[in-house]
Amino acid sequence: MNQPDQPQPPAGRWALILGATSGAGAAICKALAHTPGLDIMGLHRGNHPEGAEEVERAVEAAGREMRWLIADAGRPELIDDEADAVLAQVGREGVHIVVHSIANASVGLLASGDPEAWMHPKQVTKTFNSMAHSFVYWTQALLRREALAPGARILALDNAINESLLANLSVIAASKAALETYVRHLALELGPKGYRVNALKFGTVESAALQWIFPEEIWSEVKAVHDRMFPAGRMNTMEEVAAFVSVLAGDRGAWFNSAIIDFTGGQMHAVYQLLMDVVQEHVQKRG
Amino acid sequence: MNQPDQPQPPAGRWALILGATSGAGAAICKALAHTPGLDIMGLHRGNHPEGAEEVERAVEAAGREMRWLIADAGRPELIDDEADAVLAQVGREGVHIVVHSIANASVGLLASGDPEAWMHPKQVTKTFNSMAHSFVYWTQALLRREALAPGARILALDNAINESLLANLSVIAASKAALETYVRHLALELGPKGYRVNALKFGTVESAALQWIFPEEIWSEVKAVHDRMFPAGRMNTMEEVAAFVSVLAGDRGAWFNSAIIDFTGGQMHAVYQLLMDVVQEHVQKRG
Amino acid sequence: MNQPDQPQPPAGRWALILGATSGAGAAICKALAHTPGLDIMGLHRGNHPEGAEEVERAVEAAGREMRWLIADAGRPELIDDEADAVLAQVGREGVHIVVHSIANASVGLLASGDPEAWMHPKQVTKTFNSMAHSFVYWTQALLRREALAPGARILALDNAINESLLANLSVIAASKAALETYVRHLALELGPKGYRVNALKFGTVESAALQWIFPEEIWSEVKAVHDRMFPAGRMNTMEEVAAFVSVLAGDRGAWFNSAIIDFTGGQMHAVYQLLMDVVQEHVQKRG
Amino acid sequence: MNQPDQPQPPAGRWALILGATSGAGAAICKALAHTPGLDIMGLHRGNHPEGAEEVERAVEAAGREMRWLIADAGRPELIDDEADAVLAQVGREGVHIVVHSIANASVGLLASGDPEAWMHPKQVTKTFNSMAHSFVYWTQALLRREALAPGARILALDNAINESLLANLSVIAASKAALETYVRHLALELGPKGYRVNALKFGTVESAALQWIFPEEIWSEVKAVHDRMFPAGRMNTMEEVAAFVSVLAGDRGAWFNSAIIDFTGGQMHAVYQLLMDVVQEHVQKRG
Repeated sequence: MNQPDQPQPPAGRWALILGATSGAGAAICKALAHTPGLDIMGLHRGNHPEGAEEVERAVEAAGREMRWLIADAGRPELIDDEADAVLAQVGREGVHIVVHSIANASVGLLASGDPEAWMHPKQVTKTFNSMAHSFVYWTQALLRREALAPGARILALDNAINESLLANLSVIAASKAALETYVRHLALELGPKGYRVNALKFGTVESAALQWIFPEEIWSEVKAVHDRMFPAGRMNTMEEVAAFVSVLAGDRGAWFNSAIIDFTGGQMHAVYQLLMDVVQEHVQKRG
Repeated sequence: MNQPDQPQPPAGRWALILGATSGAGAAICKALAHTPGLDIMGLHRGNHPEGAEEVERAVEAAGREMRWLIADAGRPELIDDEADAVLAQVGREGVHIVVHSIANASVGLLASGDPEAWMHPKQVTKTFNSMAHSFVYWTQALLRREALAPGARILALDNAINESLLANLSVIAASKAALETYVRHLALELGPKGYRVNALKFGTVESAALQWIFPEEIWSEVKAVHDRMFPAGRMNTMEEVAAFVSVLAGDRGAWFNSAIIDFTGGQMHAVYQLLMDVVQEHVQKRG
Repeated sequence: MNQPDQPQPPAGRWALILGATSGAGAAICKALAHTPGLDIMGLHRGNHPEGAEEVERAVEAAGREMRWLIADAGRPELIDDEADAVLAQVGREGVHIVVHSIANASVGLLASGDPEAWMHPKQVTKTFNSMAHSFVYWTQALLRREALAPGARILALDNAINESLLANLSVIAASKAALETYVRHLALELGPKGYRVNALKFGTVESAALQWIFPEEIWSEVKAVHDRMFPAGRMNTMEEVAAFVSVLAGDRGAWFNSAIIDFTGGQMHAVYQLLMDVVQEHVQKRG
Repeated sequence: MNQPDQPQPPAGRWALILGATSGAGAAICKALAHTPGLDIMGLHRGNHPEGAEEVERAVEAAGREMRWLIADAGRPELIDDEADAVLAQVGREGVHIVVHSIANASVGLLASGDPEAWMHPKQVTKTFNSMAHSFVYWTQALLRREALAPGARILALDNAINESLLANLSVIAASKAALETYVRHLALELGPKGYRVNALKFGTVESAALQWIFPEEIWSEVKAVHDRMFPAGRMNTMEEVAAFVSVLAGDRGAWFNSAIIDFTGGQMHAVYQLLMDVVQEHVQKRG
C-alpha cells in the first residue's frame, strides 16, 4: 500500500470502471472519455477481448488514455491486490469517479420447481459478493490507499427488478436491495469527506445478452412488449445511461448524494395496464 | 353540537361505517357485528336499499343493533350536519371505530385520447373530496363532538393502484396518495390522545362492479389474469378484508398506527413476470 | 385559442416558468437562459417586482429574452385565459420546457391543537389546486393549444417532506403525494407523443423564507441542524437545483421520464442518527 | 431425511421458532402457545438457559408442549442437519408456522472512523447468512422434508432501520433489505402451493439489550426520545408484536402474503419533526 516513489498524475484524472467490458461498463468508458474528459482505467475478467479493444479505440479517439487490469473485481479476497495495482497506475487521489458495474450472478428459483436447481448457498454468496458487498470492499480499499480525489463520485449501477419481480432473478434482486442500502450508508459516512455515493437505476436495455436468453420465435414478441413497457415506446440504450453517468461526473450532477436515481424511464410504472392491454388484444385477435 | 339530554349508551359501543353499502363497507358491518361485537351505524346514499337490508339482517342476526343515516358522507359542506345526526344516535365517546369507505369518484384520462373527455376540475374536486379530504373532515367533525371513544380506531380503505398504474384511474390513484399522507399526519397528531389511524390496503376483489365494467367476452380472461396476479391464485374477497378490519378493531391490532397495511396479497409484486408468461403462452398457442 | 395571425417564433424556443419569482422559479429562469439557452416566459403574481427585475436582468445578460405575465397560475378557473396569453407570446409548439413552481399553500394542523385553527376545506382546496391539480390543468391547457414543442419536458418541483413529516405541513405533503401520482400518470399518457414528465425532488434550501419563519434566537440552531441533516454538511442551494433543471432540459436528461428524481442530497436518510447525536451532545454539554 | 418410522403428530400442530430465546422469539413462543394454540419447537444457541426455562414454563402453563433444539440456526452449513432433527420431532407436515428470528449480526462502520474497525467480509458474510440467507435455506430445507403443513405461514421478523439509517447498523440494514426481497420472491414461488410468506416489521422495543448499549447517564434521555418517536408516546412491547404473530398464524391473518407488514407504530414517520422539537426545547432550556 506504499505510495509509488514516482511522479504522480494530476489528482482526479481517472475514471475507474469495475466491469469495463459489460454493456454498461463499456458505454460508460466511452462517455466519460468525452465528457467530462477523463482517462479511463478499466477492470474486466478478460472474457471479451474484442469488447475491450473497441472501448480502447473509442477512448483513444477521444484523446484520452485507456488502461486495463485483467481481474475479477467481484471476489472479496482479491480486491486488496487489485486495488494496489490500480493505485500503481492512477496514483494517490487519482480517481475522480469509480463505477461499480460488476455482475457475476446466478439465476434460478429459490424454492419452487426442480429442487435440484434451487439456488445454492455458493451461488448466493457469489452473487452477493459480486453485486453488493464488493461495492463496499472497493470503497474501503480505495479509501485505505487514498486513491480517491477530493469530491470523488462513487457510483453503483442498479435496475428496476426490485419493483416488479422476475422469478428467476430473486438473488440478483435481493443483492440489489442490499446494494441500495449500502449506497445510503456510504453516502452518510463519506459525505463529510466530500465524496458522493449514488446508485443509477435504469431499465431493460436491448442487448445481445437479452436476445440470447430468449428463443428466436419468442424474441420479437418479448422485445415488442418490453418496448411497450416504457412510456417512450422503446427500451433505453446503454448510450443514454452512459451519457447521464457523465452528468454525474460533472458539476451539475454534484449535488446528487445518497440517491437511488430513477433513470428507468418509467418501465415498471404501468405494467398492470399493459397486461390488461395485452389480454384484451389477444381476445380481439382470437375474434 | 349540544350533547343530547338523555341517557348515553356505553362508550365505544359503535362502529361508524361511512359508505356502508359498498362492497367493502357492507362486509365490514357484518364482520364488526360479530367480532369484536359492536353495534353498527352506517351512512350510505340510499342507492342500494336491498344491500342495506341485507346488511341489517346480518347485523341483527349477530345480536347487534344496526342504525342508518341516508347521507352523502363525501361532501365537505354536509359533514357537520351529518356528524350532528351521528352524535345524536351514538352519543358522546360512542364510536370505537370509524371506517372511511367513501368512493364517489370519476374515472378517465388526464391528457390523452379525446380532449372532450379529459378529467375536469369538477371531477377532480369531487373525487378528492370524497376519497381523501373527507377522511380529514370526518375526523375533525367527530373530534369536535367528542364522539370518539378512548382508544378509538380511525381507518381508511386503500388499494394497490398506486403501485402499478391503470390509465383511467389517475385521479383515484392521486387521491389515494393524498389519503395515505393524511393517515400518517393524523396518526401523528392523534396518537398522543390514544387514537389509532391507519389505512388498510387491499387488492382487487371479484365483484359485480368489476364484472359490469368489462364486456362479457373479455370478462373471463380478465378475471383469469387477475386471479393469476395473486401468488395465492385468486383475488381476495370482501369477507377476508372485513375479517381483518375486525382484528384492527380488537386488542391484537391495537398497535398498528400510522401504517399503510399491505393486505394486497402480493397482487402487484410480480406483474412483470405475469406479463412475460402471458406473452409466451400466446406465442405457444399460436404455434 | 386561435393561432395568432403573425410570424411564429422557432419551435421550442421558450421555457415557461409557472411561479417565476419564487426562490426556485427565479433561479431556474437564470439557469435555463444560460444552458441550454432558452428564452424565458415567466408567470408570477406580481408580489415581488424587485425579484422579477433581478431575474430579467440576469436572463438578458445571458443574451436571452424575458417576458412576463402577471397572473395567479394556481387557480383552475383562470388557467384557460392565462394559457391563451402564453400562447400569444410563445406561439404554437413554442414551449420546450414547462416548470411548475406554484406554491400558494396553507400551513397548520389537521386535528390537534386549537380547533379554531384546524385546516379548513377552503385551505385544503386552495393548496391542492395550487400545488397539485394545476399541474394537470396547465398540461391540458398547453396541449389543447399545441403550445408544446416536440419532445417537450414537463417538470414538477417536489420536496422531501413526505419522507419525514412536519406537523404543520400535512396538506402540502398530501398535495405533493398527489402531484407525484399525476407525474407518473401524465408520463404514461404523454410518453407516446414524445413528451417527458418528471418531478425534481430537492431538500431544504437556506432561504429568506425559512429564516423568516423562525425567531432569531432559534434560527442559528435550526440552520445548524438542517446543515447536519445532509451528508454533505450543508443545505442545497437554489442554484444547484436550477443547474440540474438545465440538465433535464438538455439531451443528457432526456431519458428521465415518470421519475421522482431524488435530488435531496440524502437530507431525510439519517434523521434518526442525527436525533440520537443531538440528544447525546446535549447530555454531554449538560455535564 | 427419511420419515421417522413412528406415529405422526397431527399435521400443522407445531410452531417452529428459529431463535427462540431472543426477546421476540421468546414472546412469540408464549403467544402462539395460547392463540391459536400450537405446540412449540424452539431452536436457540444455548446462551440463555434461564430464558429457555421461562419460555418452557409459559408454554406448558398454556397446556402446550415445548421442545428444544440447541443449534445455531443461522449457519448455512448446519441447516440440513438441524432440519433433520426438527423433522424427527415434528413429523411430516407438522409445521403450521415457522418464525425466523435469527440475529447473529455485526455492528460497525463501513468506511469511516477507524479503518481497523471497518466492517470486514467475514462479518458481512456472517450477518447476511444469519439475518437474510438463512431464511431462504430454512424454507428450502423444510420443503425438501415436507415438514410444512398445508397453508403453512413462513414469517420473517423485520425492523424499521431501513427507513432512517443508524450509522452502526449498515450491514444489518442491508441484510434486512435483502430479506424483504426474499420474502416477496418466496411468496411468489410458494403461493401456488398454499403457503404464505411475510415479514413483520416492528419498531424499537425497550429491552435489556438496548439499555445495555447505552451508558446509564444517557439511557434515560435515549429512552425518552425513543418513546417520543412513536405517536403513541411509547415504544412497542414484545408482547404486542407476539400477539400479532398469533393473528398471522390464525384464519383472519391468512390473506397476508408477500407483505412487509408495517407494525412499527409510526416510529420513523415524524423523526424530522421530533428533531426540530428537541432542538427548540434545548434552546429554550438554555434560556
